Amino acid sequence: MEKRYLFTPGPTPVPPPVLAALAEPVLHHRGPDFRLVYASCLERLRSVFRTEREVLLFTSSGTGLLESAVANLVSPGDRVLAVSAGYFGERWAEIARAYGAEVDELSYPWGEAPSAADLASRLDGHRLVLLTHSETSTGVVADVQALAATAREAGALVAVDAVSSLGAVPLETDGWELDIVVSGSQKALMAPPGVAMVALSERAWAGRGSAPRFYFDWERTREAQAQLDAVFTPATSLVVALDAALGLLLEEGLEGAFERHLRLGRACRAGARAMGLELFSPDDDSASVVTAVRAPEGVDAGELVLTLRDRFGITLAPGQGPLKGRVFRIGHIGWFDVFDITTALAAVELALAEAGADVERGVAVTAALDAFERPLTVA
Amino acid sequence: MEKRYLFTPGPTPVPPPVLAALAEPVLHHRGPDFRLVYASCLERLRSVFRTEREVLLFTSSGTGLLESAVANLVSPGDRVLAVSAGYFGERWAEIARAYGAEVDELSYPWGEAPSAADLASRLDGHRLVLLTHSETSTGVVADVQALAATAREAGALVAVDAVSSLGAVPLETDGWELDIVVSGSQKALMAPPGVAMVALSERAWAGRGSAPRFYFDWERTREAQAQLDAVFTPATSLVVALDAALGLLLEEGLEGAFERHLRLGRACRAGARAMGLELFSPDDDSASVVTAVRAPEGVDAGELVLTLRDRFGITLAPGQGPLKGRVFRIGHIGWFDVFDITTALAAVELALAEAGADVERGVAVTAALDAFERPLTVA
Repeated sequence: MEKRYLFTPGPTPVPPPVLAALAEPVLHHRGPDFRLVYASCLERLRSVFRTEREVLLFTSSGTGLLESAVANLVSPGDRVLAVSAGYFGERWAEIARAYGAEVDELSYPWGEAPSAADLASRLDGHRLVLLTHSETSTGVVADVQALAATAREAGALVAVDAVSSLGAVPLETDGWELDIVVSGSQKALMAPPGVAMVALSERAWAGRGSAPRFYFDWERTREAQAQLDAVFTPATSLVVALDAALGLLLEEGLEGAFERHLRLGRACRAGARAMGLELFSPDDDSASVVTAVRAPEGVDAGELVLTLRDRFGITLAPGQGPLKGRVFRIGHIGWFDVFDITTALAAVELALAEAGADVERGVAVTAALDAFERPLTVA
Repeated sequence: MEKRYLFTPGPTPVPPPVLAALAEPVLHHRGPDFRLVYASCLERLRSVFRTEREVLLFTSSGTGLLESAVANLVSPGDRVLAVSAGYFGERWAEIARAYGAEVDELSYPWGEAPSAADLASRLDGHRLVLLTHSETSTGVVADVQALAATAREAGALVAVDAVSSLGAVPLETDGWELDIVVSGSQKALMAPPGVAMVALSERAWAGRGSAPRFYFDWERTREAQAQLDAVFTPATSLVVALDAALGLLLEEGLEGAFERHLRLGRACRAGARAMGLELFSPDDDSASVVTAVRAPEGVDAGELVLTLRDRFGITLAPGQGPLKGRVFRIGHIGWFDVFDITTALAAVELALAEAGADVERGVAVTAALDAFERPLTVA
């Protein structure tokens, strides 16, 4: 009977109407009941991606569609530039190497933000540039618009991992002329994990390569989707749920969702600071997706996360890679309000105090509430 | 408010407790609540596959894991023998060609059953043989045990598409020394589509090739599963549902499920014959998964399927490929009982009579009930 609180940057909490949609009887993927939902879902995805072109939907995790970018575009020996400053950027480079690409890395220490100037100086005839919009492992949201413009100027195709950013922070697929944008159901789109999607420019369609592929082949799925069909049996229940979740998101409005995430980030940072903790993710509005916080002196962040989970049923995310033990991460992507933030902060405060850490008691929650309510124009 | 009846050979109806499990709040894939379910699901899969080795679980349709067999095993130029007698066998050959395999096809007209003698005469140093256990497009269940033994004798690896057969008809992964067995959640396993699984022999592990792969790479998933971890965020809600469904299946018992499918097939055939229809799938107990029925003179089977769907909310499957318009298919895989069969038959009888076809009225349902109840030893 212990309550559960899911405050990780994916999977994220799913609203009750979305859970209810999941429990509806299974539909046949070629029947009219499903086609109505499918058409609605694909149309809503175009709104969320802000693209006039089709968005391809696959049954897969987000990583599968990062691989699709490589499998559809890269032939062995193609030169790829991977920009990485954390776990997910590094994974993308690894996928490109698995396909025989000649991969150069513009690699930053975890937690830094990639710069367009650095990118410009490294670009040298690369066919494809791999970018990570929100680096979930560090909380850094990169300036994809500037990075993409730089890569485009150099003639490269631009692929963006927007798995944890889409729907939480602004992203303009067409407006920023992004060639490949990948996202997943289980972050700001407020559905369970299991379906992922990719938006593609005409340049991406024209740039397809010779690597072997079948399930993740874009053309097969595009042809089927054009007939509101699916080439392989899709995860129908998850599509029904995703459609319901996208309806909620678009009812709030994308701009409303962006503002809410911005306020949630401010609230989380203000609360953490108020109790005397040091932030690892940037202490500014760029970090609206996930807040990475340094554990105080003498506290192992991994142990803290386990304590919160096992004593209170509250799931935060630990640090990954070089940040293991040093930071914990509070996700605020998707179906979050300020009381999720205050709950997370209250639990962190309690657990740290019990661990004997030097934290200021009784101030974090109020600081978070204040920051959330403050007009946006006051920083 | 019109009721819906899903009588297709996948997706199949999902029992209410499985739908209820889907609607539970989303779990974090690395937390203890999910790991308990994950461990249970993986263990139950081993029971259903009848293997002592691990079964790898992926977020994908079944086709994705057919591709995994090719991507993990086949290097360009490898010789593959694909046995096909319908839509799914042909698809598997197509996947192998997409990976640069040199594919020979032992190809039968749709509806025939492959024979071990034919296979023996075609085997000639092939590395890998691709088999389809239940060919969903025709209703034919192949004698995989005999085919696999023949292929093994010739030194080939044996890969089996068991997507629509596993849990419905006997299959012994270890007992028949099958090297690769692929199945999916949405057929006899009684869960929604979206997760698929593959069981592997030591010979399969030893035979991996050089084709590029990442998401469907077996080793990455094996390593993670050994720690009850997942290398990519799995479709957690579907895993929870699958575990619940496997629990129901194992509660009935695999032998009980096999017998029920056998009786369902007998009932369906007896009813169709009683109203004067001709069977396309074999008129014997090998066809326990799906019954393909020829449309009577002057009736287009595709039109019949549309009428049943649009007037009565009853979804059967049309013919595929060369069988389009000529046959309709009644699935009886998974959560089916005899009254699903009688409903399907009653609706077919009504629609055919209204279409002016020469069918015998008022006998199909009773014939089906009789056949279902008859002791198994009486053919």
